[in-house]
Amino acid sequence: MIVHKYGGSSVATPEKIRALAEILKKKVQGESKIVVIVSAMGKTTDNLIALAGEVVDGGTPDPRELDMLLVTGEQISAALLAMALKSAGVRAISRNANQLEVMSTDFHGDARIRDINAVRLLSDLENHSVVVVTGFQGVANGGDMTTLGRGSSDTLAVAIAAKLGVDCEIYSDVAGVYAFDPNRVGSVKKLDYIRYDEMLELAALGAKVLHSRAVEVAKRYSVKLYCGSTFSDERGTYVVAQLPEWVEQPAVTGLAVDRNQTKFALKKLPHSEDILSVLFEALAGEANVDMIAVTEDDITFTVRETDREKVASIVREHLVASAGWEMSIGDGVAKVSAVGVGMNTATGVAGRFFSALRREKINVLGVSTSEINISALLRADQADQAVMSLAAEFGLIDRMN
Amino acid sequence: MIVHKYGGSSVATPEKIRALAEILKKKVQGESKIVVIVSAMGKTTDNLIALAGEVVDGGTPDPRELDMLLVTGEQISAALLAMALKSAGVRAISRNANQLEVMSTDFHGDARIRDINAVRLLSDLENHSVVVVTGFQGVANGGDMTTLGRGSSDTLAVAIAAKLGVDCEIYSDVAGVYAFDPNRVGSVKKLDYIRYDEMLELAALGAKVLHSRAVEVAKRYSVKLYCGSTFSDERGTYVVAQLPEWVEQPAVTGLAVDRNQTKFALKKLPHSEDILSVLFEALAGEANVDMIAVTEDDITFTVRETDREKVASIVREHLVASAGWEMSIGDGVAKVSAVGVGMNTATGVAGRFFSALRREKINVLGVSTSEINISALLRADQADQAVMSLAAEFGLIDRMN
Repeated sequence: MIVHKYGGSSVATPEKIRALAEILKKKVQGESKIVVIVSAMGKTTDNLIALAGEVVDGGTPDPRELDMLLVTGEQISAALLAMALKSAGVRAISRNANQLEVMSTDFHGDARIRDINAVRLLSDLENHSVVVVTGFQGVANGGDMTTLGRGSSDTLAVAIAAKLGVDCEIYSDVAGVYAFDPNRVGSVKKLDYIRYDEMLELAALGAKVLHSRAVEVAKRYSVKLYCGSTFSDERGTYVVAQLPEWVEQPAVTGLAVDRNQTKFALKKLPHSEDILSVLFEALAGEANVDMIAVTEDDITFTVRETDREKVASIVREHLVASAGWEMSIGDGVAKVSAVGVGMNTATGVAGRFFSALRREKINVLGVSTSEINISALLRADQADQAVMSLAAEFGLIDRMN
Repeated sequence: MIVHKYGGSSVATPEKIRALAEILKKKVQGESKIVVIVSAMGKTTDNLIALAGEVVDGGTPDPRELDMLLVTGEQISAALLAMALKSAGVRAISRNANQLEVMSTDFHGDARIRDINAVRLLSDLENHSVVVVTGFQGVANGGDMTTLGRGSSDTLAVAIAAKLGVDCEIYSDVAGVYAFDPNRVGSVKKLDYIRYDEMLELAALGAKVLHSRAVEVAKRYSVKLYCGSTFSDERGTYVVAQLPEWVEQPAVTGLAVDRNQTKFALKKLPHSEDILSVLFEALAGEANVDMIAVTEDDITFTVRETDREKVASIVREHLVASAGWEMSIGDGVAKVSAVGVGMNTATGVAGRFFSALRREKINVLGVSTSEINISALLRADQADQAVMSLAAEFGLIDRMN
């Protein structure tokens, strides 16, 4: 028994749905029982949101009704896949969140899974080779349909795997996890293995990998995860707690770039002991303050670009009584991070990190570190250069391409 | 409290959904509470069926999965209408068959309503001005979604009205019931009133009026029905048990034309006593034999065009032992019927019926009658002429147009 999840691009057309049914038909001959979680076909969810926007004429759609609308997307793809499977001779059935009792909180648009009725699912698996489950949706107490937030079908798949105590395979049009975002720069190493904590760190740093909630649940319940390509036999990536012993233990597993950073530099601040604590406490509830560097009377920190105006006005408000201070706001900055569980045991990783940047004459504007990451703030137009230099330094280039 | 039903053309676009929300907003100010049953937007159901056809590549989609697919059509229109209502400031909520417990049999594609949870609906009506209910769908024991057959949203609306003991209004792009199909011939009288039995008879004779199951349920539970136009104030038609006393009691209320008739003429049959009973018993289970005329050794009868080959081979099979008989099959025939509850009390209706046909030199090929209808079989190319002559005779022409 195993859980599979297929993304929207894998079921985008009737032809792809038929092809997926044929693939599953072959797999059930070996593995006997598969629970398949599907996303909505292609751009269905976006189209439904656009339709809602037209109906409310520029207003905000009621969240409860928006969820009632959006859940139809996965219901369509699940029914079509089950139909294609039956037509191919596979004993299959589709189930929506209500029928499977995927219970969630009632926070419409971003509900959390509370529980899944495994008894129902197991009884379906007794009578069918494939149970196709609608992704992205749950049902709140009282029977209202909910959606679980963007990308949550991954989380649902892992949660079901956890509940059944089986492995989970996430299929999409990307054949696994890459050491860094392959859409931006040259040939990137695909990882055979990555650890839960590294995936979480990379996701938190803005890399487009698995949904972090999915990885958190996988980590908590020790679900063995595999990310692969739907329509190719290319080998994918295993997400695990610990790498197998026979695998090389790299110091750095992946890189992430966050281009949505805004750098605040406050200079000639008043010499008051509590100015820092007052300021950062005020900011804490409003914006995610990231890299902070403090010298005698200067402070530098970064926030997300979207918080720029809010942060600027909070700073002004809190320094209104002071005189002579200066604020400069820089948008053209990016944060480049290296992530690896090996970092905290291997020596010299920080040294190699900064050497790689220095070789390219990249000016480091700020630094932050955690147990498993080193981040540098730098000019946004140097980000790609930095990534390539770091990738070369830490062996993250795919030499085969 | 009242039940409304809106057809697919009334919710075909976001603009129409917004316009409908504004209409309902005005109506709830007077009538306080409305249960609205909606069909799927425009051609949604047809499009979903086509999609299913592509997925099974010419095969037959699994009926259970087809229902799972099709119910999304009404869920989308119900959610959008509820959204538009809320956006217009009306307290509204959408409910699907599962949430409202519209319990049905499990015959997928053509299930029958078994019961509706009125307690849930009444509790929703306490908290909302409008409850938008998905048409066309039910839920079987065990939670499987079902569809109730084409046109069944009318039936669901009437069933809900019966359960609540309130009136039911059916809205579409046709402003009421006409004395005969207005798409075929000139200006037709719209009826202010029509009796349940007349509606049922017209529907059985092939006229495109309300779904007959809807009328049957309305009749059984004495639900006052009204058929009107969604987007115009034009007066519609009341469907009632008895016409109000102050209304003229017409002998003939409406006309119907059935062009899908095939006429069989069997001549020079063997003089055997049981040949008729044997033949019609054999046909009974296979085809709907309609008008029968028997002379000494000839039989004439009609069947639906689609049953033509089947009936011909049954006849040959049963007469294989006999010699000398002849069979002629005529396709170009139509049945024109006049329907009216007044017919069985008013004298001379049959005489007027045949005079109207004779005036146009129309040759009557067969006749059948019931309590409230007279039907004549005639050449299909004379059907429109016959209808216009009968319409003039029985006052069914709209003199205003």
